[in-house]
Amino acid sequence: MTAVSFDYGQRHNSELVAAKRIAETASVNHRIIDIDIAQLGGSSLTDHSMIVPDGDTDKFPNKKRDEIDNDAIPNTYVPARNTIFLSYALAVAEVTDANHIVIGVSSVDYSGYPDCRPEYIEAFEHMANLATKAGVTGHRLSIQTPLQKLSKAQTIELGLSLGVDYGQTISCYRADVNGLACGVCDSCALRRQGFAQAGVTDPTHYQAG
Amino acid sequence: MTAVSFDYGQRHNSELVAAKRIAETASVNHRIIDIDIAQLGGSSLTDHSMIVPDGDTDKFPNKKRDEIDNDAIPNTYVPARNTIFLSYALAVAEVTDANHIVIGVSSVDYSGYPDCRPEYIEAFEHMANLATKAGVTGHRLSIQTPLQKLSKAQTIELGLSLGVDYGQTISCYRADVNGLACGVCDSCALRRQGFAQAGVTDPTHYQAG
Repeated sequence: MTAVSFDYGQRHNSELVAAKRIAETASVNHRIIDIDIAQLGGSSLTDHSMIVPDGDTDKFPNKKRDEIDNDAIPNTYVPARNTIFLSYALAVAEVTDANHIVIGVSSVDYSGYPDCRPEYIEAFEHMANLATKAGVTGHRLSIQTPLQKLSKAQTIELGLSLGVDYGQTISCYRADVNGLACGVCDSCALRRQGFAQAGVTDPTHYQAG
Repeated sequence: MTAVSFDYGQRHNSELVAAKRIAETASVNHRIIDIDIAQLGGSSLTDHSMIVPDGDTDKFPNKKRDEIDNDAIPNTYVPARNTIFLSYALAVAEVTDANHIVIGVSSVDYSGYPDCRPEYIEAFEHMANLATKAGVTGHRLSIQTPLQKLSKAQTIELGLSLGVDYGQTISCYRADVNGLACGVCDSCALRRQGFAQAGVTDPTHYQAG
């Protein structure tokens, strides 16, 4: 098994520090792949001239995917990000003879990202099986999305049942250099709401103030 | 219009020099995107400890795609390369509001690469339209493959009819630092055969000897 993280010029690179620490704790081989998608622009996560907005979890609390219009796609959307991530994961899978790629997308707390939808993942899986040696030899590769149908609250409950120490994880788009979460960006807002809904104390390390 | 080239640690980076020169001649905006797929290994094109084989155009002269088995995939195959290329192109298309991505794959002089097949390109196009903002707004993106059904000879004839100076282009996997082609690798062999079959003098600059 290989855990793969991406250094893509994101503001929140404290997630890479956290991923490395967690992989070490779990004794899992961990690769950080450097990819320069910041040069492409178009997202507040990689373009430091853009502002990462505060979260507003009431914005589309129960909105269905087909009700989401273009205006609802937040500026934290990075063009083709999951497609680029999955393409590299596909290369790693091919080189390491892996049968499965696991990605943590969710379409329940849907926040306007088109590349988190189940139909997108299915289309990627289909393409992946035509793209590689696997497609020629008949060896199948699957894309697994264990969090696809889980709310943030359910994800937190699943993690706790598996022994995840959420004090070691981070979701913040604007974490500081010490890895402390801002508590107010979209990602922090959804995470906080998840802990509240699960009725679990939030062990996230937040910035003071 | 934006021309996109990839610096992926390939031995034959003289193709980047040639691409830059050609884009300048044609007054087309040109981006070279740095992607580190060499770190993934698995191909003689990026792993300098592997040997790029000499070409053998008799190997599968008329072989159909479904007759190609795993053994026929050459070691110049780079895992998931076209998928990674197209994923970045998808990001560029989204950021620049482009409606089309054009890629020069061919499945006629098929040399064992699964990610050159029409069914792969169709699957990528389908996935791309679910991956991006386009997929949400209904704006369609197409993947164009003008060389898909052309033999190398036909490709050369098409290029000549459009005024391409083939003395400025290079296909070699093992070009030297001066951009001179080896003349014997798989890519050179197919290119030479194309000029011969088209009955056109080959203007490629080859290494002496």
